[in-house]
Amino acid sequence: MNNFEYKNPVKILFGKGEISKLKDEVPENVKIMLTYGGGSIKKNGVYGQVMEALAGWEIIEFGGIEPNPHYETCMKAVEVIKHENIGFLLSVGGGSVLDATKFIATAIYFEGDDPWDILAKGAEVKKAMPLADVITLPATGSEMNGNSVITKDSTKEKMAFSSLLIMPQFSILDPETIFSLPEKQVANGIVDAFVHVIEQYLTYPVNSPIQNRFAEGILLTLIEEGPKYLKNRDDYDSAANFMWAATMALNGLIGAGVPQDWATHMIGHELTAFHGIDHGRTLAIVLPGIMKVKSEQKKEKILQYGERVWNISEGDDEARVQKAIDKTVEFFESVGVPTKLKDYGVPVETTVKIVNRFVDRRFKIGENRDICPAEIQLVLEDRL
Amino acid sequence: MNNFEYKNPVKILFGKGEISKLKDEVPENVKIMLTYGGGSIKKNGVYGQVMEALAGWEIIEFGGIEPNPHYETCMKAVEVIKHENIGFLLSVGGGSVLDATKFIATAIYFEGDDPWDILAKGAEVKKAMPLADVITLPATGSEMNGNSVITKDSTKEKMAFSSLLIMPQFSILDPETIFSLPEKQVANGIVDAFVHVIEQYLTYPVNSPIQNRFAEGILLTLIEEGPKYLKNRDDYDSAANFMWAATMALNGLIGAGVPQDWATHMIGHELTAFHGIDHGRTLAIVLPGIMKVKSEQKKEKILQYGERVWNISEGDDEARVQKAIDKTVEFFESVGVPTKLKDYGVPVETTVKIVNRFVDRRFKIGENRDICPAEIQLVLEDRL
Repeated sequence: MNNFEYKNPVKILFGKGEISKLKDEVPENVKIMLTYGGGSIKKNGVYGQVMEALAGWEIIEFGGIEPNPHYETCMKAVEVIKHENIGFLLSVGGGSVLDATKFIATAIYFEGDDPWDILAKGAEVKKAMPLADVITLPATGSEMNGNSVITKDSTKEKMAFSSLLIMPQFSILDPETIFSLPEKQVANGIVDAFVHVIEQYLTYPVNSPIQNRFAEGILLTLIEEGPKYLKNRDDYDSAANFMWAATMALNGLIGAGVPQDWATHMIGHELTAFHGIDHGRTLAIVLPGIMKVKSEQKKEKILQYGERVWNISEGDDEARVQKAIDKTVEFFESVGVPTKLKDYGVPVETTVKIVNRFVDRRFKIGENRDICPAEIQLVLEDRL
Repeated sequence: MNNFEYKNPVKILFGKGEISKLKDEVPENVKIMLTYGGGSIKKNGVYGQVMEALAGWEIIEFGGIEPNPHYETCMKAVEVIKHENIGFLLSVGGGSVLDATKFIATAIYFEGDDPWDILAKGAEVKKAMPLADVITLPATGSEMNGNSVITKDSTKEKMAFSSLLIMPQFSILDPETIFSLPEKQVANGIVDAFVHVIEQYLTYPVNSPIQNRFAEGILLTLIEEGPKYLKNRDDYDSAANFMWAATMALNGLIGAGVPQDWATHMIGHELTAFHGIDHGRTLAIVLPGIMKVKSEQKKEKILQYGERVWNISEGDDEARVQKAIDKTVEFFESVGVPTKLKDYGVPVETTVKIVNRFVDRRFKIGENRDICPAEIQLVLEDRL
């Protein structure tokens, strides 16, 4: 196992009815900015529960945060905060709303010219407003980490940043809030959480049995509980297990002390940036290509993944690797997420544009930092 | 899964050489009390590493904290702190030193007559000094939780308390620090961590696949890596995996949202209180008795444990339950930890005294709060 540092102070309140505890968790005597997305929380009862719990607090609403939240939208919220005496940010929604809220929380204090530098240039995050969330979509894991992914609409750039300072003070996970999610979002969330685990697991061995088994445990749970929940959307237990799996997939724990990849995410972000394809779906497209193109470097872990997650124990190494890739594709397709570029109408020209972006960036990706633009091209060609 | 709250803000610094980071983690300009045990840290180089990292800080040493740390010893440290301007407590040693340090941290602020009330009467913990640790024995998990177990020597009472306020600010886990541990302590640590997992796992099912698989992953790791490390005491990798397994066994994660037992610990504490038997060893004695006497209530989880941890898939339920108990006993014995009372020279009279203590306490134990003194008698008779 590699040396590591790990700290995750997010308080989790998990289960039905936990939204009512907002009144005990939010600081007293502050004006709260309540951030949300397209308004689904006003139809599914979540907004009502939040407002009931926060009776007595002054609340400024900031809605309309889009999926793959825009830098431009976040900066509007920053302007509102500058003119109101806001003391606390409460995100009510999915990972996009929460990621936007995290960026808003620190953009307000940014001392340079443009807070976009935090994403584009890795400018230091020195301070952030306190924030918390009611998470209503199991997918990004944003509820228990210090990560945020923001898109600059004007240039179609999608970038990520991380800081302990933007970790939520607390996150409320009530599985009942996901009963009304569109099926497509549930499917995307299953794939997103699955690939989060894979990015921290399918690399090369460093003798880390705890991290491996936790990763495999989350994958097996997503494989069992995800489809079960898609079939029965009122099943509290499978909703709860899916939700907790998605949180554990990206709270830092399974990635502590082990190499991490993230190439699938970096390539996937470009597909979202160019074509607006849902994040989870871009991962389902790219991952099988990464597994194929990097199968030699990832062989040992792919074989372990095949055996422990998919019970693949027959055939030579090459056949077992291919079988593991096939099972992964089948799983994504089985929850209704297509895995080929043509399924989304992405033209060949886009693959060239994406490769050129990586040429411009002049750094290689993957756990060995050895995936060059030519290999990214191979990955994308595999997925045409 | 049950509703739960989970928060664990302890910062972990894991790996060889991490002790040198003390200088970045300890607050500046404070006088530090360095707590330790029998002095092994002065022989194995850990003390030297700590002092080198803390060059420039004023340090008051408080050594001599015994295994199953005494309330009486802790109160001596409290007296020292009252006369010195101590601002930070640094525990360097195993779980006993750290548990004592946690109690000291809050006893100093106790407003009632006697801080023992925190343990005996559940008096509220309102404040605690900041503390941290370099942990040198994988066993108790104290490095990543808010638990402490203290023994009152004068009355032979061993009691536990918990509070978020006594969680370490940070914990340094360098697997190299355990190379010089006596074999017996390594074996005790393996059993202690193993039983911590069992207490949160071997109860009744609540549909919690993530918690189950994490628990099983820790058990499997202890079964593989523990004996490997006992055979090769300089093996960094197995030391590291054992150490991380012990931490994960009791940091709250696998116990979140599931029923918990702790009967084995409560009965085991009495064996330590009366006969000074090492904590881990008391658990190896008691657990097989609990599994046998409560086999009906625990049947579903024992069968799952047998199958997933020990590959027991043949025979009827009764045979498989017995086999799971046998495998557990064999494992403890295989690492050199005897599992019968007679192995430790404990007379029958002690079992009567222990049963009487539970009669006096007037509450039942176990995940169903249904283990009465008569059943505790059956457990102990099974272990004669």
